[in-house]
Amino acid sequence: EQSAEDLQKQIDILAQEIESLKENGTSGSSNVLDKLSIGGYGEIHYNNYTERDNNDQIDAHRYVLYFGYDYNDKVRFFSEFELEHSLAGEGKPGEVELEQAYIEIDTTANTKLRLGQFLVPVGILNETHEPDTFYGVERNNLESKIVPATWWEAGAMFSQDLGGGLTYDIAGHSGLNMFKAGGTPNKIRSGRQKVAEANGNKGAMTGRVRYAGIPGLDMAASVQYQQDVFQAAQGFDTVSGVLVEAHARYSIAGATFTIQHAEWEFDEEIGVEAAEEQSGLMAEVSYKLTEKFGVFARHTELDWNDGGADLENTERTDSTAGVNYWIVPRVALKADYTDVHYDTDGKDNDADDNVSIGIGWSF
Amino acid sequence: EQSAEDLQKQIDILAQEIESLKENGTSGSSNVLDKLSIGGYGEIHYNNYTERDNNDQIDAHRYVLYFGYDYNDKVRFFSEFELEHSLAGEGKPGEVELEQAYIEIDTTANTKLRLGQFLVPVGILNETHEPDTFYGVERNNLESKIVPATWWEAGAMFSQDLGGGLTYDIAGHSGLNMFKAGGTPNKIRSGRQKVAEANGNKGAMTGRVRYAGIPGLDMAASVQYQQDVFQAAQGFDTVSGVLVEAHARYSIAGATFTIQHAEWEFDEEIGVEAAEEQSGLMAEVSYKLTEKFGVFARHTELDWNDGGADLENTERTDSTAGVNYWIVPRVALKADYTDVHYDTDGKDNDADDNVSIGIGWSF
Amino acid sequence: EQSAEDLQKQIDILAQEIESLKENGTSGSSNVLDKLSIGGYGEIHYNNYTERDNNDQIDAHRYVLYFGYDYNDKVRFFSEFELEHSLAGEGKPGEVELEQAYIEIDTTANTKLRLGQFLVPVGILNETHEPDTFYGVERNNLESKIVPATWWEAGAMFSQDLGGGLTYDIAGHSGLNMFKAGGTPNKIRSGRQKVAEANGNKGAMTGRVRYAGIPGLDMAASVQYQQDVFQAAQGFDTVSGVLVEAHARYSIAGATFTIQHAEWEFDEEIGVEAAEEQSGLMAEVSYKLTEKFGVFARHTELDWNDGGADLENTERTDSTAGVNYWIVPRVALKADYTDVHYDTDGKDNDADDNVSIGIGWSF
Repeated sequence: EQSAEDLQKQIDILAQEIESLKENGTSGSSNVLDKLSIGGYGEIHYNNYTERDNNDQIDAHRYVLYFGYDYNDKVRFFSEFELEHSLAGEGKPGEVELEQAYIEIDTTANTKLRLGQFLVPVGILNETHEPDTFYGVERNNLESKIVPATWWEAGAMFSQDLGGGLTYDIAGHSGLNMFKAGGTPNKIRSGRQKVAEANGNKGAMTGRVRYAGIPGLDMAASVQYQQDVFQAAQGFDTVSGVLVEAHARYSIAGATFTIQHAEWEFDEEIGVEAAEEQSGLMAEVSYKLTEKFGVFARHTELDWNDGGADLENTERTDSTAGVNYWIVPRVALKADYTDVHYDTDGKDNDADDNVSIGIGWSF
Repeated sequence: EQSAEDLQKQIDILAQEIESLKENGTSGSSNVLDKLSIGGYGEIHYNNYTERDNNDQIDAHRYVLYFGYDYNDKVRFFSEFELEHSLAGEGKPGEVELEQAYIEIDTTANTKLRLGQFLVPVGILNETHEPDTFYGVERNNLESKIVPATWWEAGAMFSQDLGGGLTYDIAGHSGLNMFKAGGTPNKIRSGRQKVAEANGNKGAMTGRVRYAGIPGLDMAASVQYQQDVFQAAQGFDTVSGVLVEAHARYSIAGATFTIQHAEWEFDEEIGVEAAEEQSGLMAEVSYKLTEKFGVFARHTELDWNDGGADLENTERTDSTAGVNYWIVPRVALKADYTDVHYDTDGKDNDADDNVSIGIGWSF
Repeated sequence: EQSAEDLQKQIDILAQEIESLKENGTSGSSNVLDKLSIGGYGEIHYNNYTERDNNDQIDAHRYVLYFGYDYNDKVRFFSEFELEHSLAGEGKPGEVELEQAYIEIDTTANTKLRLGQFLVPVGILNETHEPDTFYGVERNNLESKIVPATWWEAGAMFSQDLGGGLTYDIAGHSGLNMFKAGGTPNKIRSGRQKVAEANGNKGAMTGRVRYAGIPGLDMAASVQYQQDVFQAAQGFDTVSGVLVEAHARYSIAGATFTIQHAEWEFDEEIGVEAAEEQSGLMAEVSYKLTEKFGVFARHTELDWNDGGADLENTERTDSTAGVNYWIVPRVALKADYTDVHYDTDGKDNDADDNVSIGIGWSF
């Protein structure tokens, strides 16, 4: 017969095996799926233009899937695949996009290298754009018309964590290719080539410094140099450009204050004097009344060339106020009102005023 | 030394932990993947037009992926992403579609709310369209030309289970936007905006009652009201529409009997008298000879406006007979013959007769 | 009080349950995800044309996801879904493609049947095209212009493993549909219909024999018959075609030698004498200096009709040398130089010379 001591030994062995199972899982769960990560986000919008009689819009603006894979502890793949506007194909309004696809390598304990297609390290929304992370049905205009988010390029990016909340990134990557003439000349947003058979005659560089060392504070500044935003062939005049963006966000006791400024300066060879300088300013205050419910107000001022050969830039002010309601932390219902004002002759100050509602999710 | 009682206690604890592991899994399997659900379906068709000399077709008609995520026991995300016709892009025949993307909330034990983009609760195929669930290579024409399946809109849907097999759904959502002129005027199917930058001037509502309280029986009726199927700007004439659809399916001892009727009535402002009423009738009998092999016959009668400004509608009868062979329960090989007859002058009664074979899967 | 014997019995039961958990996993990990397989690959390229002054290119050439599902031990689904050139939609350079979607059935222990859409069993790259498996930023031209990889069709393929390293495949499938006139007449690559509403008037058959019975050696020969590469309607002249492809690869001590030849013969009804025969030859030598680093040289000779109605074919020679560096086994950085030479009048011998770098991954 077994002694109590023997039995105890067996029990201890079983207990250890159970602990091991709890920690490491079972062979029944596939190793491949363990290394795989899948997620996504999306948002559906309804825009009611209050002063217009038509063209209210319902749109599944974005539907995104993430696929990642951990090759080992130091090397990983990440990608973001997107369908915009619900429907893509010949004669359809939407498009399918590869927004990110890169290999990330932990080169040391506090440095890493990204190779491939990545989001340019500029602005607040460009790299973190899940709809549950920001207020407002639509993204703000500064990060659409001045910083043309979502903005990705292909190349290499080196990042270092200097400690104390200080990090920097430096990247060399493909450049913009704006239209010289045609429907949208000089328009920054239309210059994105999206790494889709992109002209690679000329490149660009971006650097960012970020500081998040004080609880509640997150601030960053980015500088970007574009060699030639028209990707001229050799021997032709080039138009270089410099983008400077800076922002700060401070959160305390449910309230969050954000301020952001971005400005482009292009070489005078751009030809249209008004287009040489284009800038935007954004300020936002938000307050979370409860864990699920928050209110915000946002003001954006833009001074930019919207594609015309006008002597003066378009000046536009957007004033938005609204609410977010988080059904669960990663699903947000949103509603807001935006008053749009133009300081430019010939623009209808009321045409773009709108009430918008939306739902956004991430997982 | 341990007493037998002590040992027994330890054994009981281990037994509980093992039970808990069996039920809840281990931390080794990622929590994210546990909450994620992934599936899909697809079908590839070959259509041989027996009386025509050309234009037989091979087509990867649909390739679909589902992605879902359970936020908690009561809130979940579900989506359906599709590539039609194998190839989408400039000048390509196919398209990429977001067919579903909604948040579902269990509001009480027997009610739920869907917010986002969902399939309109009308018909048999529209919400359940995996190819292994129906007979016939191609879907029937009633749920293509009268109920324009696959048909999705964005909005909100409330559903309640009343018990005893009785449920209802009521939804407010985006509406149709048919063409007034051009290639396909008044064509219902072409009116689907697919939530792709959809005109949202006017909306629509759909209600459905469903009864499945008797074993083998499934019946439902839906009514839909469209405020204006041309999405007119304010001040212009509107063309409202009402769709009524009803169907019943009864299965007994391997045999299944299905009957379905759907009818649209549009406001006379639609301008083309023939287009004011458009309807269809479908009847189907199928019999599963073995678990894997079934035969069916289907008859469809349509009286609809196929886009012309004709005084009379097109009347079309499709008579189909064929077989399904399930390799496994969710993979079906299909073959059928369809005789198409037009009761309208100037239509070739033989041109669309076809033998079709197909393979469909879901997972 | 429990006897030691009772306690031992309980301990034995627990130990068995733990073993069972280790082997079969827990119910906490979803059964569906266990049967699901997900993977993918992709590649991003930069091509610098050394003798040209413009049109260097950066492109996210391919982004691919695999989705598979095991219905049971003998029946499985596999699919490959791709976004080419980063961006697909109206006016965009890329396209979304379904490259594979088939059901595979193990009919016996050494035979299997594929039904659906599959890669044609011809060549080296067509079926195995993950970028970490080959040398060179771009695929070689023989498997682009003669064997139009990536090349898929829909139909059925039967495969048998005869033992001793000998296998064969025989497939009946949809055919090519080349352009008779227009931008790319007689161009093989442009004849791929990609199962996208493909004309199915005429079909094709492919057979392959493969031998891999000697360690380090892999050789195969394929023959394909096309009934009519213009998919003529009945009563019209047909243009049949025969493709013969053969290749051998031998690896020893880090060195790999590859040779490949492919040739088309079309019926003289094709009308352009030069287009009747089109062929290519490829030879490659590579050497893995370390586990992570390899060098290669490749020579390709093509004699093909590039779409003109010329009396003579275009003759092109590509000489490429470069390196692969595997960051991890399934992620490769690549760099190479290609010298392109034309033996055809009027072609610029230098225009296509290029230095290319790329990154490719699979998971």
